[in-house]
Amino acid sequence: MSDVRQVLREANAEAVRRMLAAEPVLIDVVAAADAIPELGEGMILHAGPPISWERMCGPMRGAVAGIAVFEGWANDLDAAAALAARGAFQFRPNHDFAAVGPMTGMTTASQPVMVVENQASGNRAFCTINEGLGKVMRFGGNDASVLTRLAWLRDVLGPALGMALRSSEGIELKSLVARGLTMGDEMHQRNVACSSLLLRSLVAALASTCGNRTILTTILSFIASNDQFFLNIAMAMGKAITDPVRDIKGASVVTAMSRNGTDFGIRVSGLGDEWFTAPVEMPDGLYFPGFSAVDANPDMGDSTIVETIGLGGFAMAAAPAVAGFVGAGAPSDAAHITHTMREITLAENPEWTIPALDYQGVPTAIDIRRVVETGIAPMINTGIAHREPGVGQVGAGVVRAPLACFESALWALGKRLGVT
Amino acid sequence: MSDVRQVLREANAEAVRRMLAAEPVLIDVVAAADAIPELGEGMILHAGPPISWERMCGPMRGAVAGIAVFEGWANDLDAAAALAARGAFQFRPNHDFAAVGPMTGMTTASQPVMVVENQASGNRAFCTINEGLGKVMRFGGNDASVLTRLAWLRDVLGPALGMALRSSEGIELKSLVARGLTMGDEMHQRNVACSSLLLRSLVAALASTCGNRTILTTILSFIASNDQFFLNIAMAMGKAITDPVRDIKGASVVTAMSRNGTDFGIRVSGLGDEWFTAPVEMPDGLYFPGFSAVDANPDMGDSTIVETIGLGGFAMAAAPAVAGFVGAGAPSDAAHITHTMREITLAENPEWTIPALDYQGVPTAIDIRRVVETGIAPMINTGIAHREPGVGQVGAGVVRAPLACFESALWALGKRLGVT
Repeated sequence: MSDVRQVLREANAEAVRRMLAAEPVLIDVVAAADAIPELGEGMILHAGPPISWERMCGPMRGAVAGIAVFEGWANDLDAAAALAARGAFQFRPNHDFAAVGPMTGMTTASQPVMVVENQASGNRAFCTINEGLGKVMRFGGNDASVLTRLAWLRDVLGPALGMALRSSEGIELKSLVARGLTMGDEMHQRNVACSSLLLRSLVAALASTCGNRTILTTILSFIASNDQFFLNIAMAMGKAITDPVRDIKGASVVTAMSRNGTDFGIRVSGLGDEWFTAPVEMPDGLYFPGFSAVDANPDMGDSTIVETIGLGGFAMAAAPAVAGFVGAGAPSDAAHITHTMREITLAENPEWTIPALDYQGVPTAIDIRRVVETGIAPMINTGIAHREPGVGQVGAGVVRAPLACFESALWALGKRLGVT
Repeated sequence: MSDVRQVLREANAEAVRRMLAAEPVLIDVVAAADAIPELGEGMILHAGPPISWERMCGPMRGAVAGIAVFEGWANDLDAAAALAARGAFQFRPNHDFAAVGPMTGMTTASQPVMVVENQASGNRAFCTINEGLGKVMRFGGNDASVLTRLAWLRDVLGPALGMALRSSEGIELKSLVARGLTMGDEMHQRNVACSSLLLRSLVAALASTCGNRTILTTILSFIASNDQFFLNIAMAMGKAITDPVRDIKGASVVTAMSRNGTDFGIRVSGLGDEWFTAPVEMPDGLYFPGFSAVDANPDMGDSTIVETIGLGGFAMAAAPAVAGFVGAGAPSDAAHITHTMREITLAENPEWTIPALDYQGVPTAIDIRRVVETGIAPMINTGIAHREPGVGQVGAGVVRAPLACFESALWALGKRLGVT
């Protein structure tokens, strides 16, 4: 038994070491098929653990139909849904391909993906470009306006961003996020600081590489008007940081938390790529005018990768304004939420600190043993999608990761280590 | 006596009303001589209350010599100093011409000034463009690199910014500052959020109006690399907000606090444009490597206009990271400083609120009676200049406005109202 404790301790120390040593840099934007060679015709990567068409929620089905039309695999949404029901598409989690996607998380061959390289370990991770607010595919939107915007991302913005990034040395994300934490961002439901800082970092390179003044103006307007532009970059960064932590024998550190709108799933370092799932919960949140909890889809998206690295709900103390936006209580209570997350994590990140807490680091490396022992579930800041396909975002809130995932993972880890 | 109280109460209510009703908008950049027709050859506007060459501190003299060379009134710095000593230049406070300037605060005919219009009352205020960090004229720098940069501001950046602003509807500053307060700025020693938000607001207009890609790239690089770019805009905004508050009979609200490096001066609404001065104090601060308190010049600049409208030291609670930067104590103590400033102010600004204080407004409208009664002097966040000409910034700190100014102003106000 003490041998097992020793294995766990050393494995977790290594997991923490790798997580904190990461050096994520945004280096490029390329077509998803170039980043992920397996991505062929009819293959659709989605958020969360594996799921079949039959079990997909409304917005996920809406997004699948939309992206199939976008890729030219179907002439219209009804035809796409019929194809999906007949099994014409191959559905796989983003997480199996070093990718992540917000909400429905559609990733297909021709979409542009941002490339974050973890320069401490050499691995790369990918995420599509944030579409902005309103009717968007990540929230299940799939009409002509949504597909037209996706085409513009593919044909104009993606290539321009890629060219600007390749002309520079990339954007070093660790220091950018450190700065964002001193500016009220938690990088999940609030990214206004990091989005602004990113634009500042890229703007000269964009101006010097984009030869067409009208296109440049349109690109700058698009990025400048989207406070959540950075979210997808934070997500790719999270994936780039956690992927090298997979598969450390005996480590009880969470390497992914993710939801497909039906199931919540986690992965644990000592258990490789196995998913431990439980039914996903309903967010507890605030709704946009005209919507209420009856409209809400259960929790969805790969964006919980940011909580997995100590941001989002875990960094609530850095972002008192978000506490009100997601309905998590008074802004002055935000510090309490961060302190609570210290109960279930193994480290503080010395490079990601919170001024209002006198520069304590964000709580990092969720330990499934601590979650099960304390009964404290990870706190997640999230957007809320309408439950019907095609509508879009209806609010924002907080949600807890279901404890059952952590319990079954701990059971499996014990078994793997010869403890029962 | 009760009549006097009634007059004071009504006058101060009007002062607060005007201060909170202001609608400052950044609308243009023009040559100072176009904004201020009185600005002719040999006329130099400076920070703080009136001062003669003989009483000017080192960095102020350095800046005077430098700007005289820049304007072509002298061939070199020595000749310029000799001319100044002979009385060849006319020295006047910025504040007499709806202008403000940081630190030495040089404003002369050919320099570009940013124009902030208070659309509630129609008045305009002016401030030169922030030069960036390092060796700069506002800290007394005056060598060739400083003058070359000033020429670039005059010939390239100023005209480009003016064109971009005129092509847009201007930048509404009240909401931009409100946002900055949720992002860790106090708009005096920390402007990284507002500088980033300003760039976001202007970038598309700059790209669409600037026809030369190389120039556009240089301009964007300059703005994007200067975290304090917004300070001078915040100052012009402060002047635009406080000017309509001047000269309300009986009002005991401060309309200007300012320092020339030798004297600290205040103006009070019920006392029009009269200055009440006292010897300026030394900042208590943190120094850049290689410098210490023995190098420091006493407090200097018109930038205290931001404290006059409830920002800077008064909004310390919004900017816990600044507390450490200026050596004002632990970040977690920042809220205490803002609460203390409530003791000497008449209102909270309902549009400029601080999330960490559960959206309390910044303390606004300093009442000289409260300052004298409580003995609490306004808290100012400031940069620190080297005491010798030509060196530049050596640190940042906090300083208190000297109580003697408030005492002599209160005495004068009582006399004006027939109370002694």
